Amino acid sequence: MRSKISNTIKFLSADMIQKANSGHPGTPMGLSDVMSVLMEKLVHNPKNPSWLNRDRLVFSGGHASALVYSYLYLSGYDIALEDLKNFRQLHSKTPGHPEITTPGVEIATGPLGQGVANAVGFAMAAKYAANLLNDENNEIINHKVYCLCGDGDLQEGISYEACALAGCHSLDNLVIIYDSNKITIDGSTSIAWDEDIKVRFEAQGFEVARIDGHNFDQIEFALDEAKNKTKPYLIIANTAIGKGALELEGSHKTHGAPLGEDLIKRAKEALGFDPDESFSVSEDVLFATRAAVEKGDLAEKLWNEKIANLSAEKKNLLNSLQNPNFDAIEFPDFSGQKVATRDSNGKILNAIAAALPSFIGGSADLAASNKTELKGFGDFPYGKNFHFGIREHSMAAINNAIARYGLFIPFSATFFIFSDYLKNSARMAALMSLRHYFVFTHDSIGVGEDGPTHEPIEQLSTFRAMPNFYTFRPADGNENVECWRAALATNAPAAFVCSRQGLEALPKAVFGEAKNGAYLIKECENADITLVASGSEVGICLKAAALLQSENIRANVVSAPCFELLCEQNDEYKARIFKGKVLAVEAASALEWYKFADEILGMKSFGESAPAGELFKLFGFSDLNVANEAKKLLNR
Amino acid sequence: MRSKISNTIKFLSADMIQKANSGHPGTPMGLSDVMSVLMEKLVHNPKNPSWLNRDRLVFSGGHASALVYSYLYLSGYDIALEDLKNFRQLHSKTPGHPEITTPGVEIATGPLGQGVANAVGFAMAAKYAANLLNDENNEIINHKVYCLCGDGDLQEGISYEACALAGCHSLDNLVIIYDSNKITIDGSTSIAWDEDIKVRFEAQGFEVARIDGHNFDQIEFALDEAKNKTKPYLIIANTAIGKGALELEGSHKTHGAPLGEDLIKRAKEALGFDPDESFSVSEDVLFATRAAVEKGDLAEKLWNEKIANLSAEKKNLLNSLQNPNFDAIEFPDFSGQKVATRDSNGKILNAIAAALPSFIGGSADLAASNKTELKGFGDFPYGKNFHFGIREHSMAAINNAIARYGLFIPFSATFFIFSDYLKNSARMAALMSLRHYFVFTHDSIGVGEDGPTHEPIEQLSTFRAMPNFYTFRPADGNENVECWRAALATNAPAAFVCSRQGLEALPKAVFGEAKNGAYLIKECENADITLVASGSEVGICLKAAALLQSENIRANVVSAPCFELLCEQNDEYKARIFKGKVLAVEAASALEWYKFADEILGMKSFGESAPAGELFKLFGFSDLNVANEAKKLLNR
Repeated sequence: MRSKISNTIKFLSADMIQKANSGHPGTPMGLSDVMSVLMEKLVHNPKNPSWLNRDRLVFSGGHASALVYSYLYLSGYDIALEDLKNFRQLHSKTPGHPEITTPGVEIATGPLGQGVANAVGFAMAAKYAANLLNDENNEIINHKVYCLCGDGDLQEGISYEACALAGCHSLDNLVIIYDSNKITIDGSTSIAWDEDIKVRFEAQGFEVARIDGHNFDQIEFALDEAKNKTKPYLIIANTAIGKGALELEGSHKTHGAPLGEDLIKRAKEALGFDPDESFSVSEDVLFATRAAVEKGDLAEKLWNEKIANLSAEKKNLLNSLQNPNFDAIEFPDFSGQKVATRDSNGKILNAIAAALPSFIGGSADLAASNKTELKGFGDFPYGKNFHFGIREHSMAAINNAIARYGLFIPFSATFFIFSDYLKNSARMAALMSLRHYFVFTHDSIGVGEDGPTHEPIEQLSTFRAMPNFYTFRPADGNENVECWRAALATNAPAAFVCSRQGLEALPKAVFGEAKNGAYLIKECENADITLVASGSEVGICLKAAALLQSENIRANVVSAPCFELLCEQNDEYKARIFKGKVLAVEAASALEWYKFADEILGMKSFGESAPAGELFKLFGFSDLNVANEAKKLLNR
Repeated sequence: MRSKISNTIKFLSADMIQKANSGHPGTPMGLSDVMSVLMEKLVHNPKNPSWLNRDRLVFSGGHASALVYSYLYLSGYDIALEDLKNFRQLHSKTPGHPEITTPGVEIATGPLGQGVANAVGFAMAAKYAANLLNDENNEIINHKVYCLCGDGDLQEGISYEACALAGCHSLDNLVIIYDSNKITIDGSTSIAWDEDIKVRFEAQGFEVARIDGHNFDQIEFALDEAKNKTKPYLIIANTAIGKGALELEGSHKTHGAPLGEDLIKRAKEALGFDPDESFSVSEDVLFATRAAVEKGDLAEKLWNEKIANLSAEKKNLLNSLQNPNFDAIEFPDFSGQKVATRDSNGKILNAIAAALPSFIGGSADLAASNKTELKGFGDFPYGKNFHFGIREHSMAAINNAIARYGLFIPFSATFFIFSDYLKNSARMAALMSLRHYFVFTHDSIGVGEDGPTHEPIEQLSTFRAMPNFYTFRPADGNENVECWRAALATNAPAAFVCSRQGLEALPKAVFGEAKNGAYLIKECENADITLVASGSEVGICLKAAALLQSENIRANVVSAPCFELLCEQNDEYKARIFKGKVLAVEAASALEWYKFADEILGMKSFGESAPAGELFKLFGFSDLNVANEAKKLLNR
């Protein structure tokens, strides 16, 4: 039966890809034997994909989406044969790479390596959740995290980073199955890779098994062994890419293109399937695989009994993890305080952590600089502080999974310049609308002496240009609070871009609020010009406006902590806050400000290494120069 | 004497940082013992920092810049004691992190892990150069590449990626010295790392030695052993961070802040230095270390004799490597051809490779999709095709070093979406004004079925916002050629953002040229509106203009392959090409186009998974919708 199930997966996948005339048959066919056994071992409930204690299964090689959908269909998730026929079509449940809109997809994958780090994240979330929720005799959280990955995933740096952390924390709930077919798009992996994978993972603290990925007994034995591990566990499954694809078996030609009608027919014939039938699933196969539904229902029922036996305290905790009460946060008040926004942000993080058991996070080895320590809350796996090491990329991918786990709201912290390293994971957070917050301190040339390698220029533009992501750059402590309120009110990831240096407290809003993205903090009658800025440049604009006033030029000042929220305001609001000519002032590329501004005073080059005060002057961010630029604009 | 030299480095570094009141003393002090021995072993010529066969020394932990400048000063590079006193001051030769404007700095470092990959790049460049230039009895290239790195570098994914490739190619000219002090900013490395580094590197094909990094004999023995290796070589030097800093020795507090006047005085006293003298270098120390000048001069002279003995053929080759003749390139002609720009770009790459021995490169395992194979040129280490594996980040950092080596002009290729993974290395290329070209294919929702994880949206904005970088998105084959001409005429990195799908040939320019960044391809008298677009959207705008014409609306069309070059044009040029209202059309965020446009038709969300044609329609990139948006803008 395993063989028949496996072959059913092979041909469902091949048929999907052939019908779409697009997709990747090699991996689904190479992994179908492993998958057919793994399906027996998984503890999950296809009728409730969000059951908390389900095993998590991550397909890191998201291009093997035909395998994912075949598995989901056969297991009884809410996905029909018709959906498989709509593979890769607009608004189908079966897009080219797995997305979380499809029931049963734990996390979106595609960019290689992300899924491995996601799996580590799920395993960390489960460890922490177990430590929070389990009673001695009542294990609420005891599931496994499985990850299927390939050569590409393990070549990417992010996979090494994440696995180093998994090994360091002895995540014994993590099982990575490595589909070792020795083929990548350009041919044999040997042209660029001859690492000893077993030794590599042992160096990182894994236990490693090596099996024939087409031998059901070996697959079963290896999977059963996972129970007894005290470390994370890597199963190296030697496979042939495109297994069953006759003359193309083992060839990189099966990776990224349909196999062709003729070959598929011959392959079906060779394995005893009707060559003239497509999308064919025999009743006995479906009967066997859909057993997952009953099994899953029973497993969840048993688990619900455990929940019923939970202490009141733990029940409350579970409830508050699942339903974070943002209203309970007691935000600090920074009125009148000159404060670096990294400091105010640190206090806000602590206030949120105090109110929300869900709120956890950490830094890529910059906790002291990012001001992200959650004081008194202890360290992972028993506390809220996660130390990610100097691994920005995997930090963000790990936190994507922690955000998807169902109990936690994580944050990731580093210097803003190193957002470069984690960019793709931030994008994945946006694509999935995850509540995952980014703390990016050292926001501009204000970094000073560390110089141009450490001074962000284009990063604000990058994040603002990304869909479904909010980039906040607060100008003082209280605005920082309002930014957090706005972020928590949206259902999307957000970044807090904070200053290293102290910023004077702003005057109160004259019109509008931070949650509108931008608001007036200084208003004249019949203003000639509006100065709009974010972060440290807002204070400079206020001084410039005073200078202009002394020359009888009426300048309004707009503080704009969130460009994206400003874009969402109606025309009336925008017209109300932008009067006369508009000059945008930002120590960054700032090109997007042309949407609202007639002229930009921004950075046109990289920064320099010198004390921050000198750099602000050098690059024109002084009250005098802003006033001059304003006059130039008015005289243009 | 070694001890005295080492202590001189310690206190020069401590004094620099104290005077600047900013910097990182821990690593310079921890590594000064290693450095004092390494200085004896280095083959270089301080009076000619660009001597081709010098050993390359990369300081991956760029924050240890005080160590770099102490070393350069002591060795006799063009850097004075006065420069050390100007550490981290504006426009000094001694910025916060090493930059290539300082004589003797091989490559700019700072973002962790980059330097390790750079070192692998130098070693690859040297291997390839040796294979090109060495005669059997006449080794023109036989130098070593040394890299000093720390815990942070080795936690970053990029370091694993690069070392996997180094091991795969048995780069026996590479010596990595790992400063293992077990301290990072947040404290002990053990909070996030317990990898067995020796085993890790052995798994990647390195030989590994472990030494006491404060024992001169062990350091010397390990460095001398480097001669006899057939593999890349890792020396794990166990050190104490802040060695010599008394009660702070071994503490993370020495990492990123000055030690304080008092402690420095006491430390000097303890090691027999005058506590009241700063920036003190005794004559015997300088005499010993400046021996490098004479030694280097002699080494280069002997090498020049080898060059004199080189065959005429090799001499010519060397000359053409050092002086690439761009005029010799015979660019293909794509007139009248419908072609995917990834295909035209592939042909252009081959034309450049045929003309320029310098021109080499490769893809992160997407050569067949990126169309980057240089046909008939063989593979590294004997040919021009470099297979980087699925390692975008290290590919780009490796190519940064290859571009800095002195002989080569490299390109890096991947899907545009995966530019996310290599972003920081592209930034470093821009910061150093390197001739390093990026081939980014699959440029938009034109990717189609692979869906949103593979469809770039914000990436054009990212690269356009980055200083000193040119982003070309050609609209047809011939424009692709003109983009390459423009890129080769600048002294900066550039990206070619190419389509997967075929694009119709454009009409000839009416006014301006691609090298101006944007130019008119359709002009009416008294135009009401200008449609400006890049890449695949230019053809759509041409059709929209025809539709508008049928309704008696006069629309000009501007093809804009390079936003950055357009920004560099004078007002007259811009006024000439933008007439009437301006509508920018681009299947990307496109926010920066507000600089020139009244309205943008761009992407406001992530893409979808469906055939490309459907997606272009869905998101409004059809002639009909462009015409409608144009009319809306005119009626506004």
